[in-house]
Amino acid sequence: MARYAFGVDIGGTTAKLGLFEDNGSLLDKWEIPTGRENNGAAILPDIAYSIRNKMQEKEISHEQVVGVGVGAPGAVDDAGVLVNGAVNLGWGVFNLSEELGKLLDLKVIAANDANVAAYGEMWQGGGKGYDSLVAVTLGTGVGGGIIINGRMLNGATGGGGEIGHIHIEDNESEACGCKNKGCLEQYASATGIVRLAKRRLAMDDKASSLRDGEISAKTVFDAVKAGDEVALEIAAQFGEYLGKGLAAVANVVNPQVFVIGGGVSKAGEILLSFIEPAFQKYVFGACKGAKFALATLGNDAGICGAAGLVLMSGSTE
Amino acid sequence: MARYAFGVDIGGTTAKLGLFEDNGSLLDKWEIPTGRENNGAAILPDIAYSIRNKMQEKEISHEQVVGVGVGAPGAVDDAGVLVNGAVNLGWGVFNLSEELGKLLDLKVIAANDANVAAYGEMWQGGGKGYDSLVAVTLGTGVGGGIIINGRMLNGATGGGGEIGHIHIEDNESEACGCKNKGCLEQYASATGIVRLAKRRLAMDDKASSLRDGEISAKTVFDAVKAGDEVALEIAAQFGEYLGKGLAAVANVVNPQVFVIGGGVSKAGEILLSFIEPAFQKYVFGACKGAKFALATLGNDAGICGAAGLVLMSGSTE
Repeated sequence: MARYAFGVDIGGTTAKLGLFEDNGSLLDKWEIPTGRENNGAAILPDIAYSIRNKMQEKEISHEQVVGVGVGAPGAVDDAGVLVNGAVNLGWGVFNLSEELGKLLDLKVIAANDANVAAYGEMWQGGGKGYDSLVAVTLGTGVGGGIIINGRMLNGATGGGGEIGHIHIEDNESEACGCKNKGCLEQYASATGIVRLAKRRLAMDDKASSLRDGEISAKTVFDAVKAGDEVALEIAAQFGEYLGKGLAAVANVVNPQVFVIGGGVSKAGEILLSFIEPAFQKYVFGACKGAKFALATLGNDAGICGAAGLVLMSGSTE
Repeated sequence: MARYAFGVDIGGTTAKLGLFEDNGSLLDKWEIPTGRENNGAAILPDIAYSIRNKMQEKEISHEQVVGVGVGAPGAVDDAGVLVNGAVNLGWGVFNLSEELGKLLDLKVIAANDANVAAYGEMWQGGGKGYDSLVAVTLGTGVGGGIIINGRMLNGATGGGGEIGHIHIEDNESEACGCKNKGCLEQYASATGIVRLAKRRLAMDDKASSLRDGEISAKTVFDAVKAGDEVALEIAAQFGEYLGKGLAAVANVVNPQVFVIGGGVSKAGEILLSFIEPAFQKYVFGACKGAKFALATLGNDAGICGAAGLVLMSGSTE
């Protein structure tokens, strides 16, 4: 009898849903809208309804479903409680696993979305074959998800893997979104790269293609690929900050591999060539062996990791 | 029937041994010499002989011994392999758990000594009642041992918890023992505090009791307690570095508590008053809840944690 799991990745605008076979194949994926109206009261019933519909459509029986994994945009403890609620969804503090489990009469495992995405990259993505990894998401901010011996490191208060807010620069005048100054995220996120670029371009010393048009992480790395000297300096600075930050992370959890994802990672392998030398410069000897890989699942990492969580927990318990 | 475990903490000069009841009571402790002669070939047989002798003396049968836990001065993987050997003992790479297990026909669990000491502080020491903690040893260097959900975080290559080598200062001209420059250990260890003190005292601006006699971490904190202004500045600098470093650690593993031990911690609670404000300044919001406590087991943390490892693993398997 075929066995299935659903993976759900809840975001502020839509929830992504995926139907997986227990071998990891993605059979179907779709999205439904989410809304903060009524403190997000409709979100879980809508998800449950959508999963029931899909089971009917695919003629999947209740017994064939191992469970439902959920990634949520907030800190989730090991019991499934959203410990600080989820402000983007209008949700307060409650047990997400329990609530959705009741609506579906299925086993539900919920966790923080960044950790769930990291789990996905370990199960079917850039970290496949490893069981201790740190997934680094370079997007608007810098997110982290940590897996140790196949288990997510959620942290005592759901703050495990908040690597974007490691203090990395003592000389910073602007504040980070978290109100501290000198966080890794201020230099290694997409917006951080733009800041580094603008600061560098304020020096009017060298010609650069970046002096015309809008600056983004993409235009910086496109210019790097074209051999633009100023862009190379900016990328080196980015790599120095991120390599230094990830060296600190490696000295703490000593992972087998860093899996780099998020919008900035679309630059490709060249990105790693700026991170790894700085990492090797700062990391402690015993932790030097960490590999670097690009994430491969893109926006599917969340649904994939959520389904994997349920399927893997089913297989080891 | 009473159940027992032995805890062994192997150092370069002596091995400490302890006999524990399964409730955590230490019944007896003693030391035997260790030596590098013959690549440390006699160390394990000597330990096995000493344990057998103690069993005879106390009339403990083979069946009453749950097992033997061992802390070793080197990186140990989850299977018990000393992955880089142990240079202080003249040991190469081998499976320590397996070897000692054969000699005694008992279950042996080996791990890195810093991680084992952390486990001891969780089981019976300053971290009692918690299951996610970071033990910080401020001695000649800065060591770390990490426990997450009751399990030691050994790391992929035994480098988990090497927090002393987190890069914390970009402006450093002297090299750390690891050859990098600006490691946490250069400011927060006993020797690091002496360095900070000498640098501060090179400025001949204020009177200080530290200007007479030898400088040590102890004399610095004694002067702090006496209200010496220069000593207060040095302690504030020490706290700034250590708080900043531990904030980075908290942003990665989000522990419930930091347990501060090692020679420097003999200064007492006043030490924490210099660390915590800096920690709170740099740590990310979701990780702010971490408590700080002093280690309580001193030199017994290793034997205690080693015995605890065996007893706890016995109770959950």
